[in-house]
Amino acid sequence: MKQNKRFQTGLEQFREIDEASVEKIIDELKDVSPELGNYIIEYAYGDIYSRKELDLKSKEIAIIAALTALGNAQPQLKFHINAGLNIGLSETEIKEIILLMSVYAGFPAALNGTAILKKVIKERNVK
Amino acid sequence: MKQNKRFQTGLEQFREIDEASVEKIIDELKDVSPELGNYIIEYAYGDIYSRKELDLKSKEIAIIAALTALGNAQPQLKFHINAGLNIGLSETEIKEIILLMSVYAGFPAALNGTAILKKVIKERNVK
Amino acid sequence: MKQNKRFQTGLEQFREIDEASVEKIIDELKDVSPELGNYIIEYAYGDIYSRKELDLKSKEIAIIAALTALGNAQPQLKFHINAGLNIGLSETEIKEIILLMSVYAGFPAALNGTAILKKVIKERNVK
Amino acid sequence: MKQNKRFQTGLEQFREIDEASVEKIIDELKDVSPELGNYIIEYAYGDIYSRKELDLKSKEIAIIAALTALGNAQPQLKFHINAGLNIGLSETEIKEIILLMSVYAGFPAALNGTAILKKVIKERNVK
Amino acid sequence: MKQNKRFQTGLEQFREIDEASVEKIIDELKDVSPELGNYIIEYAYGDIYSRKELDLKSKEIAIIAALTALGNAQPQLKFHINAGLNIGLSETEIKEIILLMSVYAGFPAALNGTAILKKVIKERNVK
Amino acid sequence: MKQNKRFQTGLEQFREIDEASVEKIIDELKDVSPELGNYIIEYAYGDIYSRKELDLKSKEIAIIAALTALGNAQPQLKFHINAGLNIGLSETEIKEIILLMSVYAGFPAALNGTAILKKVIKERNVK
Repeated sequence: MKQNKRFQTGLEQFREIDEASVEKIIDELKDVSPELGNYIIEYAYGDIYSRKELDLKSKEIAIIAALTALGNAQPQLKFHINAGLNIGLSETEIKEIILLMSVYAGFPAALNGTAILKKVIKERNVK
Repeated sequence: MKQNKRFQTGLEQFREIDEASVEKIIDELKDVSPELGNYIIEYAYGDIYSRKELDLKSKEIAIIAALTALGNAQPQLKFHINAGLNIGLSETEIKEIILLMSVYAGFPAALNGTAILKKVIKERNVK
Repeated sequence: MKQNKRFQTGLEQFREIDEASVEKIIDELKDVSPELGNYIIEYAYGDIYSRKELDLKSKEIAIIAALTALGNAQPQLKFHINAGLNIGLSETEIKEIILLMSVYAGFPAALNGTAILKKVIKERNVK
Repeated sequence: MKQNKRFQTGLEQFREIDEASVEKIIDELKDVSPELGNYIIEYAYGDIYSRKELDLKSKEIAIIAALTALGNAQPQLKFHINAGLNIGLSETEIKEIILLMSVYAGFPAALNGTAILKKVIKERNVK
Repeated sequence: MKQNKRFQTGLEQFREIDEASVEKIIDELKDVSPELGNYIIEYAYGDIYSRKELDLKSKEIAIIAALTALGNAQPQLKFHINAGLNIGLSETEIKEIILLMSVYAGFPAALNGTAILKKVIKERNVK
Repeated sequence: MKQNKRFQTGLEQFREIDEASVEKIIDELKDVSPELGNYIIEYAYGDIYSRKELDLKSKEIAIIAALTALGNAQPQLKFHINAGLNIGLSETEIKEIILLMSVYAGFPAALNGTAILKKVIKERNVK
């Protein structure tokens, strides 16, 4: 994997929001699409997520809202609920973001997002 | 239209984020579906948007992100970009929320969201 | 265009729900994709819509609900609101179907569906 | 949980379509988002579903069609296929609604909706 | 099941891309919706997929791209990744189609598509 | 705008598929979100589209299929139908890709995609 500056920036950014998952995600992709793993680090985290114009909380609010509304990206919603909790959003704030989506994407989206929040809270309490 | 407490709360909340649009939206719906106009005030604004656990900026970040990602609710995205600017989000912050959606919903979603932001900025500068 | 039995059935079925539009739709497609025009008649109307297990009202309720919820097929939603009115759904019933979608697909979907209903009612009143 | 009139109406309406699930759904949400549970009863069932302008069958036809077409709300589709059977839709009618969605949302949506119908029928036959 | 010419064409076409699955899919549908099974063979494969204007590779590229982007039809995406490999697309080509979708539908769509590709490759290697 | 190697690669790639639009798109974004313009060149074209594992035709088949199926990115679908024609896809091939989407995303998606194809053909014939 190319270890350029964007990659380094992305890796640090990724680790800031979820230290535990970086190796796992890169590892899962390394046989089937190392390129996708690389672009996630370089583009998603190195270029975009690491931008400074929005703080971390605002970014995770935006991402959790969007993934709840789309309703077809449950592993990523789970990841970002964890990331949101890691960087300082409270369970209450995340519950409220998902509840707000009942208005903009309907109750099924809000219910399925809430089920993922419930699972994340349970898993974090076990650890 | 029923003038109950939830309706009053919703109306005040709605006016707080976009004073100019309340009458217009209720008026547009009054012949075809006054019920929908009523529930927007009572449920969307009176019950949900007026909740205090998230501040106004966080709510508009969530809504702008979700509507950009969904990509099929352009009049509402336009409304909430205006609302976001009204309640204190900067043009830069909204640009960044939409840019972030290139990662989570793709470049077409980000491009079409940006086109609406451009239109809103232009209209506000004319006034 | 092949004038087989399925095509004949489809054409009659299509005419039953919107006599005025059949020629227009076939005509619009005849240069760019007569095949699509053909399959709409043969499959969508000849095979599926003409089935007898659901009555016409139930079919249009299902279609109007689905297109409102999807939110990305406005010309087809407009067509089926007209078709629904043609085959006996009342304006009130269609308003209620769209209102119900506020629960299952969110208020933007319900608002944009209602805007199309309003346009259809206006156009029919002019004629 | 607030036991206001809308809540009572919603609870009765919810019980009418699926007596067995009410406690379960409220219970699942009570730790993570009792607010969402509350708004489902008050708004989704108390305000909207309990309206009288559409009969129960028409409502479930609309909901089953919409959730099949959206394709990202499988627990809710399962719930409403059960509810549809509870309030008098036949298996054949539900099969036909889902089949109709092959035209409006494609065969994958129809196939995945049919798989849920199959699972519901199997579970109800076991009981 | 009606054994007309379209059905025969569809059956042969279906077998050409995935010999092993035809019986299984028809069998799974035969109790709950034999009609859907029938229309998949007649319309999806007999009318559309068997058309000669696009070669098999182009069709599977289009289908894999669309199902990855939609993100709500995972069983069908799995089927068509297998079909794509059966008719001569390489693992690399499919990986690239899915990677390309990061641009048009976002990284969650690309990640979830890649996870299905990984599962398909693993299953084929076991056999 | 940063003129790094990825940007240069992206610019050349973009020009290869639609010489006439590059300046226009960068120009439209330069006031509102030059960053988005930059990332489209660097990531979408410089990193991804310029990869060599798929030929240009395969890429445009994938993109046209995905955007037709999503149904909420009409300006981008129009752009890529033009790009597809520019790099050697025939009108017939594009018509067939869109027709194929009737199976995977339904007839409304296929109809709305065909309407854009019709518009593109008309505009190109005028020039």
